[in-house]
Amino acid sequence: MITPGGVDSHVHFAQDNSPTGDNFTTGSRSAIAGGTTTVLAFASQLKTEDSVLPCIKDYHTRAADQSYCDYGFHLILSNPTTNIMTTEMPLLIEQGITSVKLYMTYEPLKLGDSELLNVLMSARELGFTTMVHAENSDIISLITDRLEANGHTAPYFHAISRPQIAENEATYRIISLAELTSTPILIVHMSSEIAMKHVRKAQTRMLPIHAETCPQYLFLLSERLKGSEKDQFSGAKCVCSPPLRHDPKDLEAMWRGIANGTFTTFSSDHAPSTYDHPGGKKLGLKDGIMRYKDIPNGVPGVETRISLLFNHAGSTPSSRLTLQRFVQLTSSDPAKLYGLEGVKGNIAPGYDADLVIWYPDSEVEDGIEIQQGKLHHVVDYTPYEGMRVRNWPRLTVLRGKVVWDRDEGGVVGSVKEGRFLKRGLG
Amino acid sequence: MITPGGVDSHVHFAQDNSPTGDNFTTGSRSAIAGGTTTVLAFASQLKTEDSVLPCIKDYHTRAADQSYCDYGFHLILSNPTTNIMTTEMPLLIEQGITSVKLYMTYEPLKLGDSELLNVLMSARELGFTTMVHAENSDIISLITDRLEANGHTAPYFHAISRPQIAENEATYRIISLAELTSTPILIVHMSSEIAMKHVRKAQTRMLPIHAETCPQYLFLLSERLKGSEKDQFSGAKCVCSPPLRHDPKDLEAMWRGIANGTFTTFSSDHAPSTYDHPGGKKLGLKDGIMRYKDIPNGVPGVETRISLLFNHAGSTPSSRLTLQRFVQLTSSDPAKLYGLEGVKGNIAPGYDADLVIWYPDSEVEDGIEIQQGKLHHVVDYTPYEGMRVRNWPRLTVLRGKVVWDRDEGGVVGSVKEGRFLKRGLG
Amino acid sequence: MITPGGVDSHVHFAQDNSPTGDNFTTGSRSAIAGGTTTVLAFASQLKTEDSVLPCIKDYHTRAADQSYCDYGFHLILSNPTTNIMTTEMPLLIEQGITSVKLYMTYEPLKLGDSELLNVLMSARELGFTTMVHAENSDIISLITDRLEANGHTAPYFHAISRPQIAENEATYRIISLAELTSTPILIVHMSSEIAMKHVRKAQTRMLPIHAETCPQYLFLLSERLKGSEKDQFSGAKCVCSPPLRHDPKDLEAMWRGIANGTFTTFSSDHAPSTYDHPGGKKLGLKDGIMRYKDIPNGVPGVETRISLLFNHAGSTPSSRLTLQRFVQLTSSDPAKLYGLEGVKGNIAPGYDADLVIWYPDSEVEDGIEIQQGKLHHVVDYTPYEGMRVRNWPRLTVLRGKVVWDRDEGGVVGSVKEGRFLKRGLG
Amino acid sequence: MITPGGVDSHVHFAQDNSPTGDNFTTGSRSAIAGGTTTVLAFASQLKTEDSVLPCIKDYHTRAADQSYCDYGFHLILSNPTTNIMTTEMPLLIEQGITSVKLYMTYEPLKLGDSELLNVLMSARELGFTTMVHAENSDIISLITDRLEANGHTAPYFHAISRPQIAENEATYRIISLAELTSTPILIVHMSSEIAMKHVRKAQTRMLPIHAETCPQYLFLLSERLKGSEKDQFSGAKCVCSPPLRHDPKDLEAMWRGIANGTFTTFSSDHAPSTYDHPGGKKLGLKDGIMRYKDIPNGVPGVETRISLLFNHAGSTPSSRLTLQRFVQLTSSDPAKLYGLEGVKGNIAPGYDADLVIWYPDSEVEDGIEIQQGKLHHVVDYTPYEGMRVRNWPRLTVLRGKVVWDRDEGGVVGSVKEGRFLKRGLG
Repeated sequence: MITPGGVDSHVHFAQDNSPTGDNFTTGSRSAIAGGTTTVLAFASQLKTEDSVLPCIKDYHTRAADQSYCDYGFHLILSNPTTNIMTTEMPLLIEQGITSVKLYMTYEPLKLGDSELLNVLMSARELGFTTMVHAENSDIISLITDRLEANGHTAPYFHAISRPQIAENEATYRIISLAELTSTPILIVHMSSEIAMKHVRKAQTRMLPIHAETCPQYLFLLSERLKGSEKDQFSGAKCVCSPPLRHDPKDLEAMWRGIANGTFTTFSSDHAPSTYDHPGGKKLGLKDGIMRYKDIPNGVPGVETRISLLFNHAGSTPSSRLTLQRFVQLTSSDPAKLYGLEGVKGNIAPGYDADLVIWYPDSEVEDGIEIQQGKLHHVVDYTPYEGMRVRNWPRLTVLRGKVVWDRDEGGVVGSVKEGRFLKRGLG
Repeated sequence: MITPGGVDSHVHFAQDNSPTGDNFTTGSRSAIAGGTTTVLAFASQLKTEDSVLPCIKDYHTRAADQSYCDYGFHLILSNPTTNIMTTEMPLLIEQGITSVKLYMTYEPLKLGDSELLNVLMSARELGFTTMVHAENSDIISLITDRLEANGHTAPYFHAISRPQIAENEATYRIISLAELTSTPILIVHMSSEIAMKHVRKAQTRMLPIHAETCPQYLFLLSERLKGSEKDQFSGAKCVCSPPLRHDPKDLEAMWRGIANGTFTTFSSDHAPSTYDHPGGKKLGLKDGIMRYKDIPNGVPGVETRISLLFNHAGSTPSSRLTLQRFVQLTSSDPAKLYGLEGVKGNIAPGYDADLVIWYPDSEVEDGIEIQQGKLHHVVDYTPYEGMRVRNWPRLTVLRGKVVWDRDEGGVVGSVKEGRFLKRGLG
Repeated sequence: MITPGGVDSHVHFAQDNSPTGDNFTTGSRSAIAGGTTTVLAFASQLKTEDSVLPCIKDYHTRAADQSYCDYGFHLILSNPTTNIMTTEMPLLIEQGITSVKLYMTYEPLKLGDSELLNVLMSARELGFTTMVHAENSDIISLITDRLEANGHTAPYFHAISRPQIAENEATYRIISLAELTSTPILIVHMSSEIAMKHVRKAQTRMLPIHAETCPQYLFLLSERLKGSEKDQFSGAKCVCSPPLRHDPKDLEAMWRGIANGTFTTFSSDHAPSTYDHPGGKKLGLKDGIMRYKDIPNGVPGVETRISLLFNHAGSTPSSRLTLQRFVQLTSSDPAKLYGLEGVKGNIAPGYDADLVIWYPDSEVEDGIEIQQGKLHHVVDYTPYEGMRVRNWPRLTVLRGKVVWDRDEGGVVGSVKEGRFLKRGLG
Repeated sequence: MITPGGVDSHVHFAQDNSPTGDNFTTGSRSAIAGGTTTVLAFASQLKTEDSVLPCIKDYHTRAADQSYCDYGFHLILSNPTTNIMTTEMPLLIEQGITSVKLYMTYEPLKLGDSELLNVLMSARELGFTTMVHAENSDIISLITDRLEANGHTAPYFHAISRPQIAENEATYRIISLAELTSTPILIVHMSSEIAMKHVRKAQTRMLPIHAETCPQYLFLLSERLKGSEKDQFSGAKCVCSPPLRHDPKDLEAMWRGIANGTFTTFSSDHAPSTYDHPGGKKLGLKDGIMRYKDIPNGVPGVETRISLLFNHAGSTPSSRLTLQRFVQLTSSDPAKLYGLEGVKGNIAPGYDADLVIWYPDSEVEDGIEIQQGKLHHVVDYTPYEGMRVRNWPRLTVLRGKVVWDRDEGGVVGSVKEGRFLKRGLG
């Protein structure tokens, strides 16, 4: 079987806030080994910067000639000045950077409603795509302060500090702002059933609200944050935001959204930090004291994303999604949404010959066990350790060249192969 | 027929921001003439004040010996410092001031989510009742700026600048914050069906969410803001927030909430400014230019509230609510909610003998026409001019004394009769 | 504390289909011992009868001079001929029989949509109250046939054979028919959350849809149908329809409806058959083979109803409902709905002096254990065996006379005391 | 532009109950002239027949060598005996008749819940597709009887007699039955927003519920049933079931379902009778008396279906649906649902070369006016008379041959060209 090369529209590579994580070389290597031929990473503006051009330039240098797969950038806007929105954004769009990401939480990044509205008004005018991290910041602060006051700072409390209601509220709010301004948005990494229902209702009303979920919200529960008996702090490996949720029903709900079309994209939010090295997850452990607030957020996943979902795709009674939905979620729909229609996400005339070639499941008789030792990222763990999948891409093809050959040679592409994607409007 | 004396739990008397409006003398006179024997008015903290005690003291002097009916105060908190919440609020509760009002909009008053959460946490601990004006401030600012930039500043644009979605969003948000903190709230002067549905759903889930609506949201549409041909600015008379809505279906929706129990209280939000005198509504008209932003908000209604609703109460097919609901909404439920159970809102042993005595409808054969000339407030208009009601209180009795006699003497109570109500917890 | 005498608006006494169950003497004895002073029982028309007058007459003879408490009759209509609806129903209403019950399931009783509509049209015209047993008959038959074909006939399969979806569908359908005809209905003994949501939504839209639930749907789960290890058939004791549900969440949902006002009445559906005597539950056990289809439906509960609910009423954080709701559900609201306003359900001038007098909870220090040996019905078990309640009526007063004295004398009323209640329209 | 040849999965040709309507020759001629290359018509069992084989054979003779386009049959099951379901249905499936239609209304056709359940159980086992006409029969009968008793029998009362609540109830019921049996269904010709919401909710829950709507429910309102001043009976032309609805909001709701993916198929329900000839619509007019009950149901539409929808497809702000949705609704999704994947509904290798070729809109400068005189059916009117569309198929290609050339020759195909389609399972 052949499917279009994967498009992972949400990865964090080479960002300053995860110095021990993957750079473009290791991240893109991991991508192709997992069947992904296109990644969309982030260039992140600092709140103190009143131009985004230097940061874009900077991120170009972080990626150029250092990527095994094709790549593009979303711009994280933490200070959307009038000048940026009116003068610089049109430039960026010309340069093929046609999407921004906004945060409703995290002190150094978050925007208030007024700023969110301004960006949305600009998006309507210019046509770029807007991604939103939707969690209510003040709710999280309130709980965090109380937890801290009571000494509850182990990794598990990270999940307590960011309850679903914070996601539900922010989701409803950003949908309201998007409806008011008639602007399409994509809500990233959703993890809550009620928030998802808000999205579904908006879609039923034909509002252009898109949504994304990630493997961690389909497979992992908050109990993982408790760590092992031997190393309680190892729960830090699974600290991400929104946090892993408590109840298997939460996972079920996300699966439903995967299957019924609520989610437009399924991406990894690959946001890795190593566990054991200085500057990684262990920042949250000082003098034997665990502080979840200091743990870098995120889990690795760019390599495992496609096989984990493929494992549940098919047309048997136990399949959770059809193969069509699998392709839409992992490749064709993110390509369309982010201005790569005609280039990526499809096997058709005119499109890049990006392919994933699957050999029959039966070839790997008992399936394949996910093991950190087999992966190609720089991170020193995978949260999916020990899980089995029924198949894994046999060949990954980037613009006609085999770049991954599972059985003969592994990563056979070149680190200079990946090109910057000048994207159109989504 | 005899019903309990009306409790109007939302009136603005003698506040600095409506200098031409009713003071306690004229406002309470209007109240008893309309069948209301208890009013709950506001004492308003300035954002610059870090103690609320002086303001409470001040408002006491504005009311003492100047009221025809009994009265109490809600505290408007615009700057809820830690000291106020932990030290002063317990004092106020002892003094019988057991409710606060919070604003999510209006620059000089509005609180952010973090402040809202802090007050709710305090409410949970101390037991006071929290009222919330729920509109999204940034949405209103955005639209206002755009309208202004286009020269759209006539009174009608006030309604355009505060769309239902601003109310819907803020309502969902404050319900989320109340749910998170397990604290009861009352959302005041609701005007939007979707916002009301959020309340209803919360009530179905047994969250302690209360809601209020007002006569203007049952009877008046935004077309009123267009004024008359002769005096376009006269639309200013109906400028209030949330604004009058556009569609008769909006009125219908509020009536449904009146009937089905979603609303706990029905109050006037009597927030008057005169129209013709300097310092009133005409502040919005300078040099012939109308500016809705400068029009003092609010409509008068303390006197007409009860008759307007009574007009639709009964058990005929065309009745919109039962007499029981009428009594609950206008008297017994606000009394309970605001700590006056056992004192007000009921005709029963131990309760104050506050009564409204109705003679048969047939006595006033064709009903009574509401006319400004017959009312007792200081305001120079009523938005209900010309509407007919089938009956009007014949006698109002305050603690056993007749204070209003429609047919013989009119207001026969004394301006020193009204007592401050030391309220318990609701 | 004193509460109005209980009104149990749904009991089966002396019906032909439960020959071993309570007659009026034993049933009413059990009622007063539990704080109930009014019962509404059923007179049941046979499908073969084209007049209901003989059956009414017959049931009068089954009750007259044989009841410890006051009583009335609902008429079960299984063959609503035109003559009955137009000629006899007006007569019955004159005689104070002002409510009917309709079945959407059970072969000998069920009505099709057309018959349901005809009765509803008649109800709209004549004003009587309509109760409906809402389960989809054909769904149940289908499953029953398949279960039987597979030999699954033990009591537990009774619950399998009547899934919630059968209740949900029939509930939605009868609400639709009631909406079409603008007729009030009461849906009896609800047990499903989705069905309850249909009712709630209808109420929100101001449709006159009432609903009832019973103790068994608040306290008992289907696992009870599995019987004991020693006597698997003893699960038959808990066979009732709708059946006990599988999930604690189902119980929670019913409690929510109790608290939030969705349910108008809380009654026992006392529908007893003895377990050990011939002609009772053991009809379902022949030659060692269990056949749930042959087990008489119903559980006893007229005596335990009030104490079980009172146990959760109050104003502490763990209370599930207020005392006001307790009184509404067990007494005042069924009285109003069934035409006994002004007579029963209230402690007020003009009302019958029917009272329940409670001594402080502390008097019965560790609460009271429900035990079959202490109860006064004729049935030989109680499904609540071993449950503890915090209090039990100390005195029951019927029209001014003590008829139950928990601590001195027990049942001290007279079997001739109970009067037939000529009810008005609800 | 080229789109796949249209698949009209719901047409009535040559049925006994519309003797004056289109036979296969005229109906298929009309189809190709409108861009439709595949029609699925009905073979209808009589309730008195206990085998469906003769009727299938009969319908084959009605179509063979008489069709301009390819065709298949759905079987209308009005008497689903055990023998038919277990013995004959497998035969039919082998013969490529892989779908049935069930009626919940119409005396000669309707099935009770028990029969519906049996067919659904059989569908689950055998895999055929089940279409359902969902209206509550008894509701319609009740209203019809009352209308007739009051002499309200003009065509307009047809719409009064079949209110949306009849469709809502039946839709909820059939979804319940499908959920219980885990069987896919398609609800045909939906016209009510609430019914559509039931479908949407079911889809959100991942139940396999499909739905169809038709042009008449997007474009026509019940006022059309009032006829013209000159000929009041001409309202009969628009008598169809479900009836045209009253409110433009109903049309809007259907458009929303078209756009948001709730509807799987968009078909014509071409169910024509002539107006002026004996045996057609005029059956409802005898001796000057109009009787809507006697008017043959249905409107013609096989020829106008595609252009009417295409008119609103595109990517401009005023477009109601995308071109992708247009193709899905009119061609690819009905092909998939009814077992024609790989053959019809797609322009791809292996598929029949069925094409519609559109010339630029600008070619037909002011659009095209729909006029009866230009159409190719046998019916003597079109309900869309005078409406303008922006384009019309220039060429229709059936398996590689041009069969319709708008500008040169019109219908140029042969009446022997159309083949019976042996369909697979959907």
